[in-house]
Amino acid sequence: MTEDDIEKSTDIVTAEPETGQVERVLDAVEAEDREKLQQELDELHPADVADILEQIDSADRAALLSLWSSDMVGDVLSELDEALREEVIEQLEPEMLGQAIRDLETDDVVDLVEDMDAEMQGTILDALEASERAAVEQALSYPEESAGRLMQREVVTAPEHWTVGDAIDFLRGHDDDLPEQFYHIILVDPKIHPVGYVSLGRMLGSPRPTLLRDIVEESFRTISVAEPEENVAYAFNQYHLISAPVVDENNRLVGVITIDDAMIVLDEEAEEDILLLAGVGEESLSDRVSSTVRARLPWLCVNLVTANVAAMVIAQFEGSIAKIVALAVLMPIVASMGGNAGTQSLTVAVRALATKDLTESNTFRVIRREALAGLLNGCFLALVMASIAFLWFRSPVLSAVIASAMVINMFVAGLAGVMVPVVLDRLKLDPAVASATFVTTCTDVVGFVSFLGLATIFLL
Amino acid sequence: MTEDDIEKSTDIVTAEPETGQVERVLDAVEAEDREKLQQELDELHPADVADILEQIDSADRAALLSLWSSDMVGDVLSELDEALREEVIEQLEPEMLGQAIRDLETDDVVDLVEDMDAEMQGTILDALEASERAAVEQALSYPEESAGRLMQREVVTAPEHWTVGDAIDFLRGHDDDLPEQFYHIILVDPKIHPVGYVSLGRMLGSPRPTLLRDIVEESFRTISVAEPEENVAYAFNQYHLISAPVVDENNRLVGVITIDDAMIVLDEEAEEDILLLAGVGEESLSDRVSSTVRARLPWLCVNLVTANVAAMVIAQFEGSIAKIVALAVLMPIVASMGGNAGTQSLTVAVRALATKDLTESNTFRVIRREALAGLLNGCFLALVMASIAFLWFRSPVLSAVIASAMVINMFVAGLAGVMVPVVLDRLKLDPAVASATFVTTCTDVVGFVSFLGLATIFLL
Repeated sequence: MTEDDIEKSTDIVTAEPETGQVERVLDAVEAEDREKLQQELDELHPADVADILEQIDSADRAALLSLWSSDMVGDVLSELDEALREEVIEQLEPEMLGQAIRDLETDDVVDLVEDMDAEMQGTILDALEASERAAVEQALSYPEESAGRLMQREVVTAPEHWTVGDAIDFLRGHDDDLPEQFYHIILVDPKIHPVGYVSLGRMLGSPRPTLLRDIVEESFRTISVAEPEENVAYAFNQYHLISAPVVDENNRLVGVITIDDAMIVLDEEAEEDILLLAGVGEESLSDRVSSTVRARLPWLCVNLVTANVAAMVIAQFEGSIAKIVALAVLMPIVASMGGNAGTQSLTVAVRALATKDLTESNTFRVIRREALAGLLNGCFLALVMASIAFLWFRSPVLSAVIASAMVINMFVAGLAGVMVPVVLDRLKLDPAVASATFVTTCTDVVGFVSFLGLATIFLL
Repeated sequence: MTEDDIEKSTDIVTAEPETGQVERVLDAVEAEDREKLQQELDELHPADVADILEQIDSADRAALLSLWSSDMVGDVLSELDEALREEVIEQLEPEMLGQAIRDLETDDVVDLVEDMDAEMQGTILDALEASERAAVEQALSYPEESAGRLMQREVVTAPEHWTVGDAIDFLRGHDDDLPEQFYHIILVDPKIHPVGYVSLGRMLGSPRPTLLRDIVEESFRTISVAEPEENVAYAFNQYHLISAPVVDENNRLVGVITIDDAMIVLDEEAEEDILLLAGVGEESLSDRVSSTVRARLPWLCVNLVTANVAAMVIAQFEGSIAKIVALAVLMPIVASMGGNAGTQSLTVAVRALATKDLTESNTFRVIRREALAGLLNGCFLALVMASIAFLWFRSPVLSAVIASAMVINMFVAGLAGVMVPVVLDRLKLDPAVASATFVTTCTDVVGFVSFLGLATIFLL
């Protein structure tokens, strides 16, 4: 590589994907200009090519794939949204697909095939060499979303008694087999149990005769192969790990997980929580309308049921509403304020559970804090609302009723907002999935009952 | 370090923080057993000590701090939730604080002081040596949440013409000054412009006479010192970077950002989006009730206004409700279903904007998809609801009215769910902050107007 090449490959990270890029690619596709297309795409990182494929529609995607041939197809497939992978794979010529798959590291192949149906998985596995195929099948034998699925099997190890010089000579002799990315050398005993690791930086700063065991990192953590990936991501984030050895049930080294894999999991977990809290399951922008509709329907059905429960509560007070129509006008305010306060508390609680900040030690304190916060905000807003209601309907009793109902409902919202996710978590259910439904049903019912009930008692 | 030491320091990552640990620490504090406390805490990673401090109440925290003295106070301070840092710092003896601060790397000091008030910041800066203080003040001169605040200033560089051997000799001569963590050597030209980087793994696998420029990484990205940190995190996640050089406006190397810093930002950004979508600003479980109340009140006030807008809409139809009370019973269902469908669409849109998956190229397609998904789910659920309403109130016209209103509202929900965040984003506002309010106000108003309006036309 010459100096010019080096400078050309420098690339300032920009805030936004370059505008007009998608359009230029689409122009090339439309003009069937294979050369221009190749030129546009070859300049890009595979992740950016994948983004372009995700952002154009299905017909353009097919046209692009029929024109495009590149040696980076494998990396693009890895980067592609799961919803689109099968569509793209089906359009690749078998030969190109085989080449693409063979270029990938085994952990990327695992990530690619793990969610595919058996037939498609077979097609891909058949394209691999026997040894690679065995490695992928081994990885697939670990539970889904476990450390075993996430790890690389390529590990750089050294016996405990080696010196820095021994390690450097070994690495120089194996330059072609080294993993693309590694940051530590793992020291193992004769039974391949990991006993410590040495950072490459520390190794490079030490004279050749230094014993590796004298420069191991102070803190050293191993991960069990069956550990759920969310715990792996938590450990990397909590302990600022860069890489960690993975061991089997006999504490033998079987692989290594690096921070870039953990970062992806951390990102996915947060994404999942956001979507689940909003009643959206696993879905992506690339999904078809039909799968979007199906994915969202269950939550909407649940909501239809709970909305009808709330309606039945209101129906108990039809007589009161018929006499004082103002009740119908004001009742959604009480329910809405409770729903919002409840959502605030539950979101904080769900996240705190996910980040292990809400534990048995402080559950009681957090419940008390949220209930108190709901109560105090409720009191303040109830005063404001009572004034509005008085100016509007000129009834001091009605004002007092809506104020009281709001205080009650916002107190309950704070309480339920923490207790519902905590109980779901203790029952080993994902609090992000169902909490919102329970909490808003609770605030709807309490809101309508307290407002309409108090009104029935004091106004009729 | 002996073999025994190595084995003792091995630590299997466990799924949950050890139960009973907080209790044991509290027991030691209550018994004023300084030795036991020291022993319990010294075994832990600073991040776990910080978690314990976060999980106990304020009085226990004060008692613990008065008993505890350790050389890892600095790291614990870095790991501590911002809401607690000032409280803890105020309780530390000046001497201990000074020592703690001097043990930290400059980027950790920056992180520690950047959100503090001027007085507290002064106390901490005064504890630093002159050169460190200058470095921290320099970092603080960059905009908040920019690459300049995030980067380490300690960088390992090499002139372009060096060989692997030159670099190894240089590193061995500077073992004491090397940063704790580094993964690449950055090649610079005579004007300190970065021109490429070499991974330590690649360097270790190459013979001494190899020119560094011949083994630079293929893809090389530099980050501008003023770049917002969220773009930095995006780049690390998108391009799987491990570290990236930071350059000033003249393209001179001023620091380096590593993936662990980017991971923290990525985590914070996702956290922020989750909380903002629920109407919770920056807050943590360690906040006092008073700050929680204040932080949540603004959003609740906005919601009180929008709830009153919806109530005013209902008030326009008081006459209709007085005649048919069933309308009051059913109207919250229409609003609620629209609100939920809208929240689904808007959450997907807000996340897609944050991850740069929703761009100018596909906005129109996404709006069409969401509106269509809302419409289709609306049609299905409207049929179900029409049946329920018919069984309940035995009025075919009322059933038709609620079905039509639901279809209209869920179509609008899908439309508004994408358009509101997209418009806010184009106006350079954070779509996570305000979208939910706008969208649910929209679905409340459309829901009540369509249902009560159609009912007034066809039933009265």
